[in-house]
Amino acid sequence: MTAPNLLSKLATIGDGPIADSESVERYATDVTRNYHGQPIAVMRPRTTEEVAAIVQVCAQAAVSVVPHGGNSGLVGGSVPVGDDKSVLVSLERMNAVRDLDLLSNTVTVEAGCLLVDVQQLAADKDRLFPLRHAGLSSQIGGNLSTNAGGTNVVRYGMARNLVLGIEVVLANGAIWNGLNRLPKHNTGYDLKHLFIGAEGTLGIITAAKLKLFPPPQLSETVLFAMNTCTAAVGLLARCRAELDEFLSTFELMSGVAVESVVGTAALPMDSSHEWYVLAEFAATSKRVPLEEMLLDVIGAAADDGLIADAIIAASASQSRKLWNIRERIPALIVEDPTCVKGDSSVPISAIPKYIAAADQGVATLVPNARVLVFGHIGDGNIHYNVLRPPGMSEEEFAVFGPALTLVIENAALELGGSLSAEHGLGQKKMHRAAAVLGDEELNLMRLIKRSLDPHGLLNPGKVVEEPDV
Amino acid sequence: MTAPNLLSKLATIGDGPIADSESVERYATDVTRNYHGQPIAVMRPRTTEEVAAIVQVCAQAAVSVVPHGGNSGLVGGSVPVGDDKSVLVSLERMNAVRDLDLLSNTVTVEAGCLLVDVQQLAADKDRLFPLRHAGLSSQIGGNLSTNAGGTNVVRYGMARNLVLGIEVVLANGAIWNGLNRLPKHNTGYDLKHLFIGAEGTLGIITAAKLKLFPPPQLSETVLFAMNTCTAAVGLLARCRAELDEFLSTFELMSGVAVESVVGTAALPMDSSHEWYVLAEFAATSKRVPLEEMLLDVIGAAADDGLIADAIIAASASQSRKLWNIRERIPALIVEDPTCVKGDSSVPISAIPKYIAAADQGVATLVPNARVLVFGHIGDGNIHYNVLRPPGMSEEEFAVFGPALTLVIENAALELGGSLSAEHGLGQKKMHRAAAVLGDEELNLMRLIKRSLDPHGLLNPGKVVEEPDV
Repeated sequence: MTAPNLLSKLATIGDGPIADSESVERYATDVTRNYHGQPIAVMRPRTTEEVAAIVQVCAQAAVSVVPHGGNSGLVGGSVPVGDDKSVLVSLERMNAVRDLDLLSNTVTVEAGCLLVDVQQLAADKDRLFPLRHAGLSSQIGGNLSTNAGGTNVVRYGMARNLVLGIEVVLANGAIWNGLNRLPKHNTGYDLKHLFIGAEGTLGIITAAKLKLFPPPQLSETVLFAMNTCTAAVGLLARCRAELDEFLSTFELMSGVAVESVVGTAALPMDSSHEWYVLAEFAATSKRVPLEEMLLDVIGAAADDGLIADAIIAASASQSRKLWNIRERIPALIVEDPTCVKGDSSVPISAIPKYIAAADQGVATLVPNARVLVFGHIGDGNIHYNVLRPPGMSEEEFAVFGPALTLVIENAALELGGSLSAEHGLGQKKMHRAAAVLGDEELNLMRLIKRSLDPHGLLNPGKVVEEPDV
Repeated sequence: MTAPNLLSKLATIGDGPIADSESVERYATDVTRNYHGQPIAVMRPRTTEEVAAIVQVCAQAAVSVVPHGGNSGLVGGSVPVGDDKSVLVSLERMNAVRDLDLLSNTVTVEAGCLLVDVQQLAADKDRLFPLRHAGLSSQIGGNLSTNAGGTNVVRYGMARNLVLGIEVVLANGAIWNGLNRLPKHNTGYDLKHLFIGAEGTLGIITAAKLKLFPPPQLSETVLFAMNTCTAAVGLLARCRAELDEFLSTFELMSGVAVESVVGTAALPMDSSHEWYVLAEFAATSKRVPLEEMLLDVIGAAADDGLIADAIIAASASQSRKLWNIRERIPALIVEDPTCVKGDSSVPISAIPKYIAAADQGVATLVPNARVLVFGHIGDGNIHYNVLRPPGMSEEEFAVFGPALTLVIENAALELGGSLSAEHGLGQKKMHRAAAVLGDEELNLMRLIKRSLDPHGLLNPGKVVEEPDV
């Protein structure tokens, strides 16, 4: 099929491709501005059947398909690779809520629903949908395709843990409806986990049945300050032992990160500190003496020299203010295209070693670089980021980018860590997967890719690298 | 390769095949005594490399391999099908603990470790491994291959939720070591979930890195009595709303089930009741006023007529005594080969309708059959079992077996339920999978099976039915 033929076929599906090139451009560039593609067409289907029709037409024309959610990913997964000719399929118009079952605590939504809208929908019904991260424009489909993480993973798990069933358009344009799942369903292979986290390379997730939870009736937000990140790890162990079922969030922030967002004139505590932890504890019942239990833990941690200071938020607005510090950090990273963005996980006990090793490597390469560390240390996930030092040009700093990335990633790998904890592989890290996965696992991934997408039509150039093709 | 050649090759691996036919017989019959196979040889490897060598030799001879764990499964998954000539591989001697990391709360064990031994190992280190079910002889490999459930699922999830990484021997005899996984690891496809729950049809799990949890410091065991199972569902909703993070177990037992184990002379309460719920609530901290919170819930439930009676265990020994009632029920089912064993899950709100529909269907077929219901209603999983009525011969009752099974399963399917909640498909239910899964899902399962095991060597005749082969 020639390109004009493909376009004329696409024109018959839904509203057809977007016409004006300015709009197309918006879909072609990723949020980090590091990745840019050139889609032949941008489609915005309204139904699963339209998605299936688009995939069928593209399969006939041997043209690849790039699924596109809220475009908040950090590894270039949502745009075509280089000048690869693809049809970009934005799921944004598939945003219906298909079912809400409050007795079973489930909601079934389409892929284009915004995460914030699903959170709000749940809250309106006195439920909690606990996925919470910095990608405010993100859609449910993208959240599942990337197995998103964030600040509530320590209690509720990654995105894949919040899903009962999914609906997927396959590479041949067939629709697999696997939404009818219950919490216990040992009836065949668990296929959903193959598509969740596959970054659109095995199928396009079009809808999902999500788990809802009882909302906490009581919560406490605490900002801890400490001199070392070893102390933060020690504090985590105590919170686990004393308050395990209440621990919802345990976020590390370096002093540099905190001061970068609030400035030195508006520090959250009387003096500045090397490290902070923003923690949240929540209970379903108001009868839990959460504050007293927390005061005990704080008192003991202070006596033992683990913490230098602590603030328990006295009101919802004070809690919001503390959270605001944490929530403003990612923008510093995402919006700077020259920033070297890290996303490693290491065994929790290895976090201090990891940060020290990365510090040393970075200092050797770019001595006065600004290092900005934050992360979900309750899960062993650290975002170690390097920003251009004052006085260095963007061009010069960019030269160090690949070496800085390698140094940071290797520091994690040497401690038994992972290359990507929550951002995924995308275009950015696909070529590095072999540093973590053995040959046998890479073979298995290619085998699965080839069986589900034999012609390599779905989101090519992401996740799975084919050797010598 | 001829059979003698295969046997001579197997003889060079580890201790070679078991010689005496009496021992072979022990492996060839499943625990329900409904399934019996005729293995060519029984191998008991001690290492992953020996498992791989066995699979390689069998692959060369085009002889199938049946992995065999603790043989406590209820769907015939652990023995060869009929007179299919297979080599049975028992994992029992692969029972080393490879690693224990208390800071990261993980233990890495081989497939042949007994579940009870892993529970004990964790307890000895002040940790909890929460998988808990009636298969006391079960091994970790079998627990993962069947994605085992049990009485703690409501809090900790199914077996697959308790795993970070696995090691697998593939159909070609290659070893995939995927043990090096952290809680966050978005680095490629999540392959482990494909092998977990696949009942040995895609690979043989030889080791696993399991999650450990802080052990509860405080727990309360309660036996509730009620007149209807609708009341039990209502009580569950209240416990969820008031005590969600403490709810570890919520087990339904019919009055018939309770009386079948304790007799009418030793009832747990002053009078007999239609339904009972055994619930356990546990907290990590002793500071949680669990008993007071529980008394509130009990008081309100009694006032609203949800419960007829309740006992809070006053001591560990009384808790043990209450648990003992629940734990003696499965033996009544498992040890009776004519018993029709149910394992359905339905949406929680549909449980009363499901039981009523099954009751009606069974009464029509075998009016005076003994119905014995229990299950994990916190997860919507009901074991609806039918026992031979007094006076009916085993032969006559066996005639009704298939029809009774169909009636019970269809009652669940009509309410959006599942065919097998936790027991799996095995030989028993493979042919029924199409009743739950659509054509597209069956196609996907076959596609996955063919790519990972192209010659159908691994545990044939289980889980995936090939059409017209």
